[in-house]
Amino acid sequence: MRIDLNADMGEGFGSWRMGDDDALLEVVTTANVACGFHAGDPQIMRRTAEQARAAGVAVGAHPGYADLAGFGRRPVSGITEREIETLVAYQVGAFAGACALAGHRMTHVKTHGALGNACADDEGLALAVARGIRAVDPGLHFMVMPGKATERAAERLDLAPIREVYADRAYADSFNLAPRAQPGAVVHDPATALAAVLRMLEDGQIVSVGGKVLPVQIDSVCLHGDTPEALAMAQRLRSGLEEAGHEVAPAVPPA
Amino acid sequence: MRIDLNADMGEGFGSWRMGDDDALLEVVTTANVACGFHAGDPQIMRRTAEQARAAGVAVGAHPGYADLAGFGRRPVSGITEREIETLVAYQVGAFAGACALAGHRMTHVKTHGALGNACADDEGLALAVARGIRAVDPGLHFMVMPGKATERAAERLDLAPIREVYADRAYADSFNLAPRAQPGAVVHDPATALAAVLRMLEDGQIVSVGGKVLPVQIDSVCLHGDTPEALAMAQRLRSGLEEAGHEVAPAVPPA
Amino acid sequence: MRIDLNADMGEGFGSWRMGDDDALLEVVTTANVACGFHAGDPQIMRRTAEQARAAGVAVGAHPGYADLAGFGRRPVSGITEREIETLVAYQVGAFAGACALAGHRMTHVKTHGALGNACADDEGLALAVARGIRAVDPGLHFMVMPGKATERAAERLDLAPIREVYADRAYADSFNLAPRAQPGAVVHDPATALAAVLRMLEDGQIVSVGGKVLPVQIDSVCLHGDTPEALAMAQRLRSGLEEAGHEVAPAVPPA
Amino acid sequence: MRIDLNADMGEGFGSWRMGDDDALLEVVTTANVACGFHAGDPQIMRRTAEQARAAGVAVGAHPGYADLAGFGRRPVSGITEREIETLVAYQVGAFAGACALAGHRMTHVKTHGALGNACADDEGLALAVARGIRAVDPGLHFMVMPGKATERAAERLDLAPIREVYADRAYADSFNLAPRAQPGAVVHDPATALAAVLRMLEDGQIVSVGGKVLPVQIDSVCLHGDTPEALAMAQRLRSGLEEAGHEVAPAVPPA
Repeated sequence: MRIDLNADMGEGFGSWRMGDDDALLEVVTTANVACGFHAGDPQIMRRTAEQARAAGVAVGAHPGYADLAGFGRRPVSGITEREIETLVAYQVGAFAGACALAGHRMTHVKTHGALGNACADDEGLALAVARGIRAVDPGLHFMVMPGKATERAAERLDLAPIREVYADRAYADSFNLAPRAQPGAVVHDPATALAAVLRMLEDGQIVSVGGKVLPVQIDSVCLHGDTPEALAMAQRLRSGLEEAGHEVAPAVPPA
Repeated sequence: MRIDLNADMGEGFGSWRMGDDDALLEVVTTANVACGFHAGDPQIMRRTAEQARAAGVAVGAHPGYADLAGFGRRPVSGITEREIETLVAYQVGAFAGACALAGHRMTHVKTHGALGNACADDEGLALAVARGIRAVDPGLHFMVMPGKATERAAERLDLAPIREVYADRAYADSFNLAPRAQPGAVVHDPATALAAVLRMLEDGQIVSVGGKVLPVQIDSVCLHGDTPEALAMAQRLRSGLEEAGHEVAPAVPPA
Repeated sequence: MRIDLNADMGEGFGSWRMGDDDALLEVVTTANVACGFHAGDPQIMRRTAEQARAAGVAVGAHPGYADLAGFGRRPVSGITEREIETLVAYQVGAFAGACALAGHRMTHVKTHGALGNACADDEGLALAVARGIRAVDPGLHFMVMPGKATERAAERLDLAPIREVYADRAYADSFNLAPRAQPGAVVHDPATALAAVLRMLEDGQIVSVGGKVLPVQIDSVCLHGDTPEALAMAQRLRSGLEEAGHEVAPAVPPA
Repeated sequence: MRIDLNADMGEGFGSWRMGDDDALLEVVTTANVACGFHAGDPQIMRRTAEQARAAGVAVGAHPGYADLAGFGRRPVSGITEREIETLVAYQVGAFAGACALAGHRMTHVKTHGALGNACADDEGLALAVARGIRAVDPGLHFMVMPGKATERAAERLDLAPIREVYADRAYADSFNLAPRAQPGAVVHDPATALAAVLRMLEDGQIVSVGGKVLPVQIDSVCLHGDTPEALAMAQRLRSGLEEAGHEVAPAVPPA
């Protein structure tokens, strides 16, 4: 089987850096690039797109709330669908500009942090994101979690979905990620994480902690590189997937 | 003759407003919309594009330095051509996203404040702006001051220029605007300003304070609406141009 | 009786202005000055303190959430007591710096917008604000709404309270302001607002829409100047209070 | 002899970190803490003050230009003395608030980056900084480079100076640091840097690259910890100074 590995990248700001993008670019096949609202800035976006192009890694916009101080992880109450449409279209358009300079193709959009959480369970907000994407380019793919409002929004608005799973996280019965505080919610052992991913890929389904089953065609696995441990886990997952005979390649070819 | 009237718009931020955009939209035929770096935010950009569309007014991106506190009027020393390319492409792309949601066409780009000043006299920076524009869309027009580096950059990179003049300002021999502090640099009397514009249009030339002559095909006149006096001046210029038989219409038709 | 009139001031940012501070300074006796997080910046803070000093108006810090884009009106979920202590102490200390340059005394602190709302009903957050104030200067007064957690926090931490009422708003049975959307929640007629204030002052009590009664010693009346109507209302309230024989003077003398 | 070692600290923002503050706190005796304008935020400022207090390290405010994106390293043209006074007083006052919560004493102020460069050679700007400091607390020390306008400003305004030297940088004949691009301007070998510091301390003078001599009483040595190499250099300098019999202690005792 063919599988994509994606990670968030370009999450610095000005003189600050977060994570080891150089190392991650050798592991993943798709990068979700912060767009200047929760992290990232125009120069970092362009450089990330250039580096991804050189590495054969696909890039997508990774829009978030306008919250540098909180890294886009703080919920914003009372935000309207219109406001979400607009902040998504702004950031996706801005990343299109950065990609144009980098000579690289933007393949997709994935929402970040608290914006992503808000959309996962709210059909109206998820559709707002999808409208913001489609306004900029109806050919963009929408990276979504299977079983959630964002997946349904992609279908309703005819955006091609990229369905992603998490290797190192347990799933709640809602098919959200189980809260980190919950015992067993986070997998720290690379072998266990690899086994979980291989099972999901081979069975074509996600199984929740409560035993619920969601049949799904999995397109991508989400990895992290913001700590040395996370990077080691990502590297192990890639080599394990290749050893198991899977072809690791971008979900949407960048060129 | 056919002449465009342009003004900067959408220069609020969050809860703050600047100028009377509603009134200006009834006077001008082209609006330059701030893109969130020196002023403007995604919601204001979209709303401005929607209002402009309803009023039949053409819109363009009005990128500036990342300087909300200084309204983009403070010089940034040491900025590179690459950095300027990137901040222009980011902002133009972002405004393209806002226009897509508004269902309106972006016709052009005009630089703001200290960014504009830096480019007017520096061939390298002017070309960097032009590359940033062209990367997003080579069909965009570049609004420039006649005789300056930006005009030459538009020509070299095959971006169609919109050549603008100022009704209420005297021209230095460099064909920059004479500094405001200089006696006679700012025209306060609407009749005098109107006469100056009519003369420039009819003669097809700009005459500097020192008597230098620049032959030019004028496409647009820049107006302001940030004070009640500026708005009254703008209204008077429009009616005066129409009374003199000129057709007031967008330099680039928005639809 | 002696009564203070307070209003929020210095709510511009960079080149943006909000409200007519010059006019308000002739009406009120106390100004709550934004501290750069939801509005205001160092230059505006200093200038406002200087103008207030010249006008004999007392000044206090008006700290809010770090949210320029939302003017500090958006709730921030998950913020801790420690974080609130810190953001209050930072802003109060910063305003102390601006006052020192202006040669004016800071008399008090009043919380802004969503921060104020969060504290009004949460004893822990209200105490956090009071600790932030007391750390900077235990001689500062804490401007509070009678019957709310902030009033109790002032008492528990030995900060002198300034108890304020609103002239133009109805009170819910919780002694919060009734939501604006509720019929009768906002009083638009100056005569009605004046009568309501005079009654509260003379009876020494606030009566809620549901008929609940809160006995209270009222120290200040909160006014607004952000619209021409609000300013006219403020002027009418001042002249009405004076005509009724009340002495209009700062709750805490600034010198 | 008694000598202080100082370093900049608390230079993260939101979720971003810069340098290894934990390690630096074991090396230096004085920390200059960013105040939220070029780096730092209220929470980081307080935590840094708390950690410094626990480590017996003195703390001072490290104000800079309002330029998160450029880390305060970009010159700001046209800034006035009044503006500088105000941005210094704001930041020093804000840090006083953070220190009050941390239960730690602020001992001094040192300017950051482009603000520091601007003041080193401009008597007017240096005096503006000194007035901003003195307005908040005339007992604060002013950390300065010997022979520069800031040292003279401290003297004129009766602020006690902390005179610092750089261990790893050559001095131009102006007693500014020699530009990094110049050969020999940056010392990479710890033994060479240590020898240079010991010589300056023992001779009581700084010798420029051109052989100019500035007699000076040196109070502090500036170290850096933003890279692993810088941290190793700092550790080596401390142990070398102690081995040479110098007492390493804060220039101003924090308690």
